[in-house]
Amino acid sequence: MKALVTGFDPFGGEVVNPSLEAVRRLPARIGELIVVTQRLPAAFAASLPELYAAIEREDPDIVLCTGEAGSRTELSPERVAINVQDARIPDNEGAQPVDVKVAEDGPAAYFTTLPIKAAVLAMRQAGLPVAVSNSAGTFVCNHVFYGLMHYAATRKARFRGGFMHVPYLPEQAANHPKAPSMAVETIARGIEILLAVAAERSTDLVVAEGAVS
Amino acid sequence: MKALVTGFDPFGGEVVNPSLEAVRRLPARIGELIVVTQRLPAAFAASLPELYAAIEREDPDIVLCTGEAGSRTELSPERVAINVQDARIPDNEGAQPVDVKVAEDGPAAYFTTLPIKAAVLAMRQAGLPVAVSNSAGTFVCNHVFYGLMHYAATRKARFRGGFMHVPYLPEQAANHPKAPSMAVETIARGIEILLAVAAERSTDLVVAEGAVS
Amino acid sequence: MKALVTGFDPFGGEVVNPSLEAVRRLPARIGELIVVTQRLPAAFAASLPELYAAIEREDPDIVLCTGEAGSRTELSPERVAINVQDARIPDNEGAQPVDVKVAEDGPAAYFTTLPIKAAVLAMRQAGLPVAVSNSAGTFVCNHVFYGLMHYAATRKARFRGGFMHVPYLPEQAANHPKAPSMAVETIARGIEILLAVAAERSTDLVVAEGAVS
Amino acid sequence: MKALVTGFDPFGGEVVNPSLEAVRRLPARIGELIVVTQRLPAAFAASLPELYAAIEREDPDIVLCTGEAGSRTELSPERVAINVQDARIPDNEGAQPVDVKVAEDGPAAYFTTLPIKAAVLAMRQAGLPVAVSNSAGTFVCNHVFYGLMHYAATRKARFRGGFMHVPYLPEQAANHPKAPSMAVETIARGIEILLAVAAERSTDLVVAEGAVS
Repeated sequence: MKALVTGFDPFGGEVVNPSLEAVRRLPARIGELIVVTQRLPAAFAASLPELYAAIEREDPDIVLCTGEAGSRTELSPERVAINVQDARIPDNEGAQPVDVKVAEDGPAAYFTTLPIKAAVLAMRQAGLPVAVSNSAGTFVCNHVFYGLMHYAATRKARFRGGFMHVPYLPEQAANHPKAPSMAVETIARGIEILLAVAAERSTDLVVAEGAVS
Repeated sequence: MKALVTGFDPFGGEVVNPSLEAVRRLPARIGELIVVTQRLPAAFAASLPELYAAIEREDPDIVLCTGEAGSRTELSPERVAINVQDARIPDNEGAQPVDVKVAEDGPAAYFTTLPIKAAVLAMRQAGLPVAVSNSAGTFVCNHVFYGLMHYAATRKARFRGGFMHVPYLPEQAANHPKAPSMAVETIARGIEILLAVAAERSTDLVVAEGAVS
Repeated sequence: MKALVTGFDPFGGEVVNPSLEAVRRLPARIGELIVVTQRLPAAFAASLPELYAAIEREDPDIVLCTGEAGSRTELSPERVAINVQDARIPDNEGAQPVDVKVAEDGPAAYFTTLPIKAAVLAMRQAGLPVAVSNSAGTFVCNHVFYGLMHYAATRKARFRGGFMHVPYLPEQAANHPKAPSMAVETIARGIEILLAVAAERSTDLVVAEGAVS
Repeated sequence: MKALVTGFDPFGGEVVNPSLEAVRRLPARIGELIVVTQRLPAAFAASLPELYAAIEREDPDIVLCTGEAGSRTELSPERVAINVQDARIPDNEGAQPVDVKVAEDGPAAYFTTLPIKAAVLAMRQAGLPVAVSNSAGTFVCNHVFYGLMHYAATRKARFRGGFMHVPYLPEQAANHPKAPSMAVETIARGIEILLAVAAERSTDLVVAEGAVS
């Protein structure tokens, strides 16, 4: 089995992106699972073509995209991608789409097809701060997540796919008073566990990890 | 024009629900808009039948459901409802569905059809803390919001619909250390402004109010 | 008995100060307690002379100074004032003292002489979000609190004194994403309760309201 | 030169204490500075005798005590210790003193004699999240910090002393939803930098690191 894992370029004034730094530290194999990685531009227009090219080149069984979530304390496997672009800040190419669909003909949302509940339990068991998230935002992260799942649905691709948001690195939080952070090794370990769980099982556990509001 | 506005019963150990307290303080008219209100049970099974009965009885032009979001600082008009029930705690009838759909045959999500961006600008202009939210959670609030929009879509109902989460009341926060809160009068004022904006305009403004993550 | 209550001018780019707005709404009497109020400039040099002049003019039994704490969710009666000025931003006269003492010959700190534990219990009983705070910061609020208690100690003044921080008003939080806030009426009610408790009792209750860290 | 560094036993239901875990990872030397470490019980009565015995045994030039602050995102060198015990929870020996002095004859507070501003700048430069804190709470951490400085003052000890709070470890935050955390290696690196700066300089930098409230 093969997993394709992506991380983003720095954006929003940052000089690093924790997702890319963590992805770069992944091993080439996790047990039997081959791991290949891909850097994605933090831009609406350029991100999906690069993701799709990597998918076509690698023909993966699992695709996990990762991105930065600066205000979060926890690793955040995402449950759902929504069909909207609503950019509070310009992306790395200067684009700032507002209330535009990711895919004109796409459904309102896609749910992840990775076993995120099982992965959350395994990560928590391993001592990692983690929680299922019910919103990937409305910027490039959600755009890539939606675009990934739309590709899977419309091309009848065989891979299972998902997205995980990760906190700032300590070196980023050093410049943002009160911002939480997580060491790159901790983030990378979380990604590895999620991948290992996804390689082991195709269906998810049914355990409560919802949000009251 | 007529608006139907709902609030929930207390749940989760609380003795009041800020949504219901605020809805009870709404005037019977806002300009030309007639306002009718309905209490909903905080329970998966019982909530939608009561909502649907009220819709059929009142035949409203606008339906706004409101609910409690204990950790929020702001009034939170919701952008999207998702087709999932994932209850971290039991509802008021003891049910705790996990990873069950709201509507077996429904789409993954519905977007609000109320002009929430225009309403956010008007509320902020009026000095209210407010932000568009991209997740209504996975408990009874999201369930009711999804069920509302599913009814509108499948019955080809003429109303426009949406949901707003509201913070704890001060008397609730008094028992939850560090919890933010909002006075019932402030919440009620926010609901009034949202209703007035929805009565005035059917299409929304295109202004950036998105979330990076 | 007579209480002198102060609030500050707006500072730090704000156009209102919740402490001053709340103090302006206080009644002239609370039971037998006469209430007089005083506006203080948000400036190190100018604040204490105005406070001391008001004390000498009014000869109060109780002095309560109040100030804005923008990130707090709760009314925060302060336990202790420390002998330091360390200004992160310039005050309203452009001064920005760093690591300078409030009183060259003063002790490291003063504890409040108001019954803040009893007041916290009474406010909580009345449904107000409230907690004892163990730091009034290092800006003009702490400066005034320290200066108040230093005056009491060195002049052997008969009044009992203290300080309470209060959250932003909603109209301020409207311009600060995610910032908590509190209605001016709620803040004013908290001040009234604190004053009433201070008028009733000179010694405090011994109940745990400490902070682990 | 020699530094004595202390960390606490786990308390409050935790099975590890980040301060102790980090202190255990310190090297025996940092440049010319010899580093010796000491575990302290998380108990009012037992902690200071053990600290004083270690001081007398080691005769250090620098004493840095460290402790856990579960809600913080940042390394927090403390500015001031106050003369109060106010325990929200029982300590590890079951004691829960409320509004009792640490030292009956001591002053209201002591300021640290370590160069915390210089250390904050050096840690931030090294990419660590850090901020000066103006309250060490009112539990055993503040008790030990106050007791340390009281010993220095009353015994005319030659050491300079201080305290730093540190966040939860990730494995602790895994069990506390939304709690921030920091890797033990990051915490240990922060302690090393603080010690190196304290060994290099006896006076502090005068730079603004205050809190508005």
